[in-house]
Amino acid sequence: MRAEIVSVGTELLLGQIVDTNAPYLSKLLPELGITLHHRSTVGDNEARLIDTLKLALSRSDIVFTIGGLGPTQDDITKETVAKVVGDEMVLDEDSACSIRDFFASRGIEMPESNIKQAMGPARGKILPNPMGTAPGAIFETQDDKIVVVLPGPPKEFIPMVGERVLPYLREHVGKQSGIIKSRILRIAGLGESSVEDKVKHLLKSLNPTVAPYASPGEVHLRITASAVNSDEASVLIDEMDRKIVDILGDRVFGRDDETLEQVVVESLVRRGLTLSLAESCTGGLVANRITDIPGSSAAFMVGVVSYANQAKVDFVGVDEQLLIDNGAVSEPVARAMAEGIRRRSKTDVALSITGIAGPSGGTPEKPVGLVYMALASDMGTNVEKHQFIGSRSDIKCRSSQSALDMLRLFLLNRP
Amino acid sequence: MRAEIVSVGTELLLGQIVDTNAPYLSKLLPELGITLHHRSTVGDNEARLIDTLKLALSRSDIVFTIGGLGPTQDDITKETVAKVVGDEMVLDEDSACSIRDFFASRGIEMPESNIKQAMGPARGKILPNPMGTAPGAIFETQDDKIVVVLPGPPKEFIPMVGERVLPYLREHVGKQSGIIKSRILRIAGLGESSVEDKVKHLLKSLNPTVAPYASPGEVHLRITASAVNSDEASVLIDEMDRKIVDILGDRVFGRDDETLEQVVVESLVRRGLTLSLAESCTGGLVANRITDIPGSSAAFMVGVVSYANQAKVDFVGVDEQLLIDNGAVSEPVARAMAEGIRRRSKTDVALSITGIAGPSGGTPEKPVGLVYMALASDMGTNVEKHQFIGSRSDIKCRSSQSALDMLRLFLLNRP
Repeated sequence: MRAEIVSVGTELLLGQIVDTNAPYLSKLLPELGITLHHRSTVGDNEARLIDTLKLALSRSDIVFTIGGLGPTQDDITKETVAKVVGDEMVLDEDSACSIRDFFASRGIEMPESNIKQAMGPARGKILPNPMGTAPGAIFETQDDKIVVVLPGPPKEFIPMVGERVLPYLREHVGKQSGIIKSRILRIAGLGESSVEDKVKHLLKSLNPTVAPYASPGEVHLRITASAVNSDEASVLIDEMDRKIVDILGDRVFGRDDETLEQVVVESLVRRGLTLSLAESCTGGLVANRITDIPGSSAAFMVGVVSYANQAKVDFVGVDEQLLIDNGAVSEPVARAMAEGIRRRSKTDVALSITGIAGPSGGTPEKPVGLVYMALASDMGTNVEKHQFIGSRSDIKCRSSQSALDMLRLFLLNRP
Repeated sequence: MRAEIVSVGTELLLGQIVDTNAPYLSKLLPELGITLHHRSTVGDNEARLIDTLKLALSRSDIVFTIGGLGPTQDDITKETVAKVVGDEMVLDEDSACSIRDFFASRGIEMPESNIKQAMGPARGKILPNPMGTAPGAIFETQDDKIVVVLPGPPKEFIPMVGERVLPYLREHVGKQSGIIKSRILRIAGLGESSVEDKVKHLLKSLNPTVAPYASPGEVHLRITASAVNSDEASVLIDEMDRKIVDILGDRVFGRDDETLEQVVVESLVRRGLTLSLAESCTGGLVANRITDIPGSSAAFMVGVVSYANQAKVDFVGVDEQLLIDNGAVSEPVARAMAEGIRRRSKTDVALSITGIAGPSGGTPEKPVGLVYMALASDMGTNVEKHQFIGSRSDIKCRSSQSALDMLRLFLLNRP
């Protein structure tokens, strides 16, 4: 089963929005045994959309279109698909009703232009859209190919895919000859080239395949297996997963969408430990990442973003003389920040970060990207020194990543 | 001049990364008089890449490829382009040197596999890559079409586009018959439908066109003008810009890539005012956004993420009885947080946010999404109450957006 995604919209070609729908759908297809070989983006132009659809139908069994279902004259996807597959458009009474309801519930009368959104394929089916006025549709061609027409706003697109399209595909795509499944192993504390070096022999494996790629402050290894069914694919993936963990050990911190902050929060909560933070160069990024995790309030008590030196003294309890003698970006100040915030907040663990995020403020002795981080607990205080490269936001991101990883490794070694 | 972008990478088709490079480049082309009619994505597969490149060259004058320049066997873009345009690949000594230097500066010997990255087109030119080991290249076909081959990591892609590709295109694409130019007006504090309602008559304009779209916590109006040259397009855009500002007034906070935090930081610095923050439900997001702006340290002194109630007492100076009587999410506590952090940090302005980010923790009286924010200054303290909807991260985002906008409007009315 081969598929192709066609994203429609001039605003995509002008780069004014980033297409997150196509990747979202792409991720879901392999498990259904559907292989995606192409994605295309085309503007709101009938001739080019026709060409793109014809090409897609010539090389794929299923074509998904995304976008161009609005009420305006620009929105031509449904009509154009009907033309290409040779179907008629007819009024769908249910859709007309629910579009009228949609406006009524907002106290507005339905503009006439919206009625065209209630048109659907004579031979195919309508996909209701509870989140908006643009229903989707499934068209069938004379030679049993399928065109699934979906709305562009992610708020409408995502529920329609989950509630309508996946169940339809599961039923209609039926028994597969095989499926593709993949898992991502997420690695912190090692660079891409050193990960590649350590698992070099595994990168040659044909099934499952293993492919490395770098993400900000992390390295990902993607394991992809082909098998006759999902269980067999899982066996292959599990086996490779174990081989990689045998080599990389606790550098592997998570799988798939698991983030470092999620692992850290779960680990703190499971151990019943409380956390405080004193951040300088990361400017609240570590606190923000931790508080992105639901339930983090069970472990995270307080964070101080002590940006000014005076704030390090007043809010974290760093000795003023220490700042004068060593400067804010130094081993002793990182240590005093972690110990100070731990003492003042009475938490079990405290983490501090102080560094130079740039783009200015560096000196030959203390260049942009120099960052100290400290972890204080009842077992004493550890300080790490890092030299990061990149932009201001790179340095903030990598610092937060290393600090969270420092905390993760500390918790791993604690019952 | 017609262009097409071909993004290369199986990880894109598996939805494991979102392609931000293609939109980035798309945005830059219209001003050069280059019209993008198609974008395609294809995996690391030679046959399909060849077909995609041939199709692209049949309908466009310039083809940009992004990705597939790494050292591994998967990375086939440059070799495949050479095959399609009928060019030879030759070793580029400068690139070989700089790749060796890249590894040497990291204390590693260059792996043999990296030497293939130093190969470039015999007839075309190499685009040096100071940020990595994969140089780009410009190929020329026999019939004067151009293929620009660019690396996939955004960190390498963006500087190469800015420093190499744009100057090349400006010189080679030469005089245009016409250009398209656009500007985005960014609006805070109004919903999409109420913005649309207010500027309804302008949305019908044909040149420039005005199109609204919603972004988290903001509404954007995109003005797009066609004209014979950049200056004439600017005149059309400026005129429409003024019309919109006449209607929406200070709700328009910025243009194009200008963020709310940037506007706020510039406004604070220009007025010589200092800022402190006391965040609860936003968990450091406001501090993080402010410290993303270079130079923010001139205004931003300290932020306390007082997540636990005890932290509101100990670090921000909120009266314990106030918390017992009103709960942490309340008008009096928001007020006490702003006034407390302002007093303790001796800053000119202080902002506080307290609310329920969810997904749990809501009650009938205080539902998820209820957020109070306060601004304290020498002119007294203002408190705003908001009810946001959405996920935990939506609520954090919208809260930070409203808080920054509250500060922006306060600063606007101050000399």
